[in-house]
Amino acid sequence: MSTDLEQIGRRAKVAARHLARLGRAEKDAALLVIADVLIERQEAILAANAEDMDAARESGTSPALLDRMLLTLARLEAIAADTRSVAGLPDPVGEIFDAADLPNGLRLHKRRTPIGVVGVIYEARPNVTVDIAALCLKTGNAAILRGGSDIARSVVAITDAISEALGRCGLPIDAVQSITDPDRELVRGLLRMDRYVDMIIPRGGGRLHRFCLENATIPVITGGIGVCHIYADATANLERAVPLIHNAKVQRPSVCNALDTLLVQREIAPALLPMVADSLCAAGVELRCDEESLGILADAPGAAGWTITPAGEDDFGTEFMGLILSVRVVDGLDVALDHIAAYGSHSEAILTEDAAAAERFVREVDSAAVFVNASTRFNDGAQFGLGAEVAVSTQKLHWRGPLGLVALTTFKWVATGDYSVRA
Amino acid sequence: MSTDLEQIGRRAKVAARHLARLGRAEKDAALLVIADVLIERQEAILAANAEDMDAARESGTSPALLDRMLLTLARLEAIAADTRSVAGLPDPVGEIFDAADLPNGLRLHKRRTPIGVVGVIYEARPNVTVDIAALCLKTGNAAILRGGSDIARSVVAITDAISEALGRCGLPIDAVQSITDPDRELVRGLLRMDRYVDMIIPRGGGRLHRFCLENATIPVITGGIGVCHIYADATANLERAVPLIHNAKVQRPSVCNALDTLLVQREIAPALLPMVADSLCAAGVELRCDEESLGILADAPGAAGWTITPAGEDDFGTEFMGLILSVRVVDGLDVALDHIAAYGSHSEAILTEDAAAAERFVREVDSAAVFVNASTRFNDGAQFGLGAEVAVSTQKLHWRGPLGLVALTTFKWVATGDYSVRA
Repeated sequence: MSTDLEQIGRRAKVAARHLARLGRAEKDAALLVIADVLIERQEAILAANAEDMDAARESGTSPALLDRMLLTLARLEAIAADTRSVAGLPDPVGEIFDAADLPNGLRLHKRRTPIGVVGVIYEARPNVTVDIAALCLKTGNAAILRGGSDIARSVVAITDAISEALGRCGLPIDAVQSITDPDRELVRGLLRMDRYVDMIIPRGGGRLHRFCLENATIPVITGGIGVCHIYADATANLERAVPLIHNAKVQRPSVCNALDTLLVQREIAPALLPMVADSLCAAGVELRCDEESLGILADAPGAAGWTITPAGEDDFGTEFMGLILSVRVVDGLDVALDHIAAYGSHSEAILTEDAAAAERFVREVDSAAVFVNASTRFNDGAQFGLGAEVAVSTQKLHWRGPLGLVALTTFKWVATGDYSVRA
Repeated sequence: MSTDLEQIGRRAKVAARHLARLGRAEKDAALLVIADVLIERQEAILAANAEDMDAARESGTSPALLDRMLLTLARLEAIAADTRSVAGLPDPVGEIFDAADLPNGLRLHKRRTPIGVVGVIYEARPNVTVDIAALCLKTGNAAILRGGSDIARSVVAITDAISEALGRCGLPIDAVQSITDPDRELVRGLLRMDRYVDMIIPRGGGRLHRFCLENATIPVITGGIGVCHIYADATANLERAVPLIHNAKVQRPSVCNALDTLLVQREIAPALLPMVADSLCAAGVELRCDEESLGILADAPGAAGWTITPAGEDDFGTEFMGLILSVRVVDGLDVALDHIAAYGSHSEAILTEDAAAAERFVREVDSAAVFVNASTRFNDGAQFGLGAEVAVSTQKLHWRGPLGLVALTTFKWVATGDYSVRA
């Protein structure tokens, strides 16, 4: 390896100590300068990106992936604008909470602090480089970034711009370091640098998350993947349920909070299912139906215009990431809860007019986000008012669901005594 | 392997769903019955422990370890009393926080939930079996326990008692399962059961923690190990500093929050160090001194009665777990902060009358607990008012420092709409 990981780690640790001492004003000022330098350096950044794009096109990269890799001036301006808006968010570092005067004479509180050094491993999205750098800087964390090798030239150009901006502000340039050497062993090495790195965030598909879990000796925030459910209860308002189900499935089918499975209570199934089929199939959705729902739909007027197929074994428990919805008729809340316990974890909703059913659903569904009469698509940092989103966690430690700035902090206990000794 | 880990995991997951639905009253009632059954079954438990003790004695186990393994009726009664006192603590599950009405029309809150399934790997302390079982049950988590093979018979007898109690209360006996098969591969297997287990807590020495980090695909709470520092600032009250330093070093030298290194500001060193030596050496402490402190102490009246030696390379950065203290004279706060940044992480204290120095120390020291004019020995769940302590974390994600009941919970986002869709 020509890249010296040990040195990168050591430098990040030194930079993190410096960053932890900064006040909000210095960090926000640096964010604005980063935004400026990204625009100043647009030519160099777009030229580097064009080289990445050429190489990717030559190697037969898919159009969808090419689009994710692409930077344009408009996109760069949007990235700069996002960076400026991070400067406008409140800084959680230094916040004091859980203060108490203890019987042993100590005055105790918790104080929010940066985590330290955050490692982020991502795929072909050059914007993530700035995104994560900005959120880490805002929270006083040093970042070690490893983007996909297909965007290495873009990442180098962006990281250079960030270094230039940090330098201008008198901040340590090691606050944001990128590993752009294509050697894949470096990723494995980064995942084992627990002496220096406090947290790993993978941003990518299921295989990347799994690779991190398997290889890391550092805590990993996994997530972003999940099978999402809506359960339409017997008391659901059918007219209002249909546009909600449509929104959850169709508004942006390729993302993790899009609906995958619709569970319908038996009594309302004959009325609701044809309405759902009318609405969703018109938008190009294929319904993969269990026996009972298939029976209802196949015999309904309008069936000829719908794409309805029998659900296979894997259609429950699959994240479709596209215009497919699996459908099951259930006896009631108990069966729906069993089904969700088997397959859910990310975003689940109940549609109901029955407050007791809603409360039971909320209490018993063990997912990152649980909705009552709201679309699963709301499981998102911006929609939840976080201002920025680092990732979406589906594991349970440290943080669940959308990670905002607070999720990039930890705390320390602070106790003040009067030369107090333990009895 | 004759033990079917997959089955243990699946059963724990089912039990966890059941536990998550319980209210405080049912959980507390079960805790009281567990305490009762431990006493009812004292004969069986003490007989099993006697067999473990015989085998350990035959294999030449050290007296200190034998004492940790030993159960007596008095100890069993204390364990039962601790279990009853867990029933008296507040239940964090169900707590609602961060409630907000959002511009998108959603009413949002976070709700505290059990983590799910907690795996605990511990060494030769049979009491940990009950301890963890009680704290997990209180917080609605299923527990999979793996105690040291030298206490396997004790663990079986205790787990049987817990199962009996759970059964009497109509709770799932799989809420607390122990892996007592001595096959060491089972530990490695448990650490990779991320399909079923949400959190791993090692309770033991540094090697066990490292083994868990290296092998787990599940988040691990590491901790319990740390080099602790006191910095005596120029303004410290010397008369009051000495008993505090004595307390931090001598009150219980074998534990993780005992003092390891004393840093003394140069101006006060000639006055403070001889007082410290008088007080600590009388209690049997060996002082391992840097050149400057050695010079001061060697020339002081009373030196003949002190055990003072030159500090070796490793004496700074070592957790002594015994009556040894390393001592260094420093120029001031900057050097003290550099020293602590290099070696600290667990419990650090400043002794000072200068509020600005105290605030800088608190802000810049990045340790689980930071003290002003208080002994490092206070870094402890009971001292911090947590009521119970699961472990002490020195890593930064999820929780730092002493883990109480809240640290055994996570949260879910709950959003209520009015058939709301994302725009």
